[in-house]
Amino acid sequence: MTWSLRVAATSPKIRLGEVASNVERIRAALESAVADDAELIVLPELATSGYVFTERGEAAKASIARDDPAWADLASALVPGVTAVVGYAERAGQHLYNTAAVFTRDRRIGDYRKSHLWGAEALLFESGDSAGAIFEVPFGRLAVAICYDNEFPEVPRRLALCGADMLALPVNWPRVPRPDGERPPETIQAMAAARSSRLATVIADRSGTERGVEWTEGTAIINDDGWLAAVPDAYGCAVATLAFRARGDKSLPPHNDLFGDRRPHLY
Amino acid sequence: MTWSLRVAATSPKIRLGEVASNVERIRAALESAVADDAELIVLPELATSGYVFTERGEAAKASIARDDPAWADLASALVPGVTAVVGYAERAGQHLYNTAAVFTRDRRIGDYRKSHLWGAEALLFESGDSAGAIFEVPFGRLAVAICYDNEFPEVPRRLALCGADMLALPVNWPRVPRPDGERPPETIQAMAAARSSRLATVIADRSGTERGVEWTEGTAIINDDGWLAAVPDAYGCAVATLAFRARGDKSLPPHNDLFGDRRPHLY
Repeated sequence: MTWSLRVAATSPKIRLGEVASNVERIRAALESAVADDAELIVLPELATSGYVFTERGEAAKASIARDDPAWADLASALVPGVTAVVGYAERAGQHLYNTAAVFTRDRRIGDYRKSHLWGAEALLFESGDSAGAIFEVPFGRLAVAICYDNEFPEVPRRLALCGADMLALPVNWPRVPRPDGERPPETIQAMAAARSSRLATVIADRSGTERGVEWTEGTAIINDDGWLAAVPDAYGCAVATLAFRARGDKSLPPHNDLFGDRRPHLY
Repeated sequence: MTWSLRVAATSPKIRLGEVASNVERIRAALESAVADDAELIVLPELATSGYVFTERGEAAKASIARDDPAWADLASALVPGVTAVVGYAERAGQHLYNTAAVFTRDRRIGDYRKSHLWGAEALLFESGDSAGAIFEVPFGRLAVAICYDNEFPEVPRRLALCGADMLALPVNWPRVPRPDGERPPETIQAMAAARSSRLATVIADRSGTERGVEWTEGTAIINDDGWLAAVPDAYGCAVATLAFRARGDKSLPPHNDLFGDRRPHLY
């Protein structure tokens, strides 16, 4: 049975270390996407805290726990049936993680801790123990990975093979050199991964700069054929209604199947 | 130690079933690439036979064995130190394979039999028993995969993890629907795979049409950062001198490494 879903990736202004005001702006972004009838809303990696910390103590100060009152505040911006994915610096006892929270208005569905740490992140955060994760959400099975995770082809592939209906990808992509006229390389990698596994991907990136790091502004919605379905409007929000084949259908008629044609004993 | 290699992907006119004249045109294309100082020359999938066979008997008639005299003729177009990769319909006893021959002027280095069969190919050919293969050639370790093989992210990844210095990819890409202004999706997938594993990829595709199938004309050279280094000239030949870091260097200074950052126990 075919189905469709209205999805949003939104990139409000995020200020390094200013958790309370970031939460306010995230809340407003959620409200705005809800008003646009989005059923899945994805915010960037480390949206509550910002990214470019220079040392662990600074990251710790901007971290929040899973039961921080901010979460109830953010959840209250949603309406029933809507799922949000918001990146945050997670404090868990003495540990810090680069985490994405998955929640609805009424329930904390789960948290995914990034397991492939980029740059100096390993000096700030512990690694998660799962390469992406899949959560049962109101519309189906939502995979979540964070930024550098998705540059390992194993990650989106594994999530799709495990039955994900779609991937939410909070990122903070620093702009890297690229030839004139080319997309960010991370976008190309996400498009390829989406097409290879028929895995639509909702990417929320940062915009502007932070401590001299220029973000690549890669917020985008990629459909399950691997093509761009939406890029951000003037307010940093990309919205699209994605149409899907039956869940788990990876067939390429008349002869082929993206998953059935795999030769796993050869890999 | 850094190194460089001059590579060519060339797409001469290929006529369905006309083996002798195809071999002549492949020979001329090899000579031309040698004259351009190419050290690796890649021809399309099923270059000696054409692709759009409607039944096995027809493919069998256009098949040749590994010891067919055509190979000595083609090898004689090369000069010492040059490696060629040429797709052909291979006859081996009662079996037919979609194979790529790897050879120098003086030696048949090996043959790779395609293991992911596209469309009606399974009605024509047996499957190979390796997901791509790596050959020791004069310049180093050359991986070879054929067409649909490379749309399985496991294949280029595995070849790179096994130590390939570069990938030769003979293809016959039928043109598929794509949004205006977009590249062929298979090119996007090859660019992403190249970047993820720092695996330069030399793609030789068909051009024009065959029995109503329009080829996507995706002949291209992709460098190991995943960017297009060359597309075909008016004669269907793409040539580039690729520069490489030290062999096996997957580092992303100062903190990261494309392979070292993998979490294989999580996949």
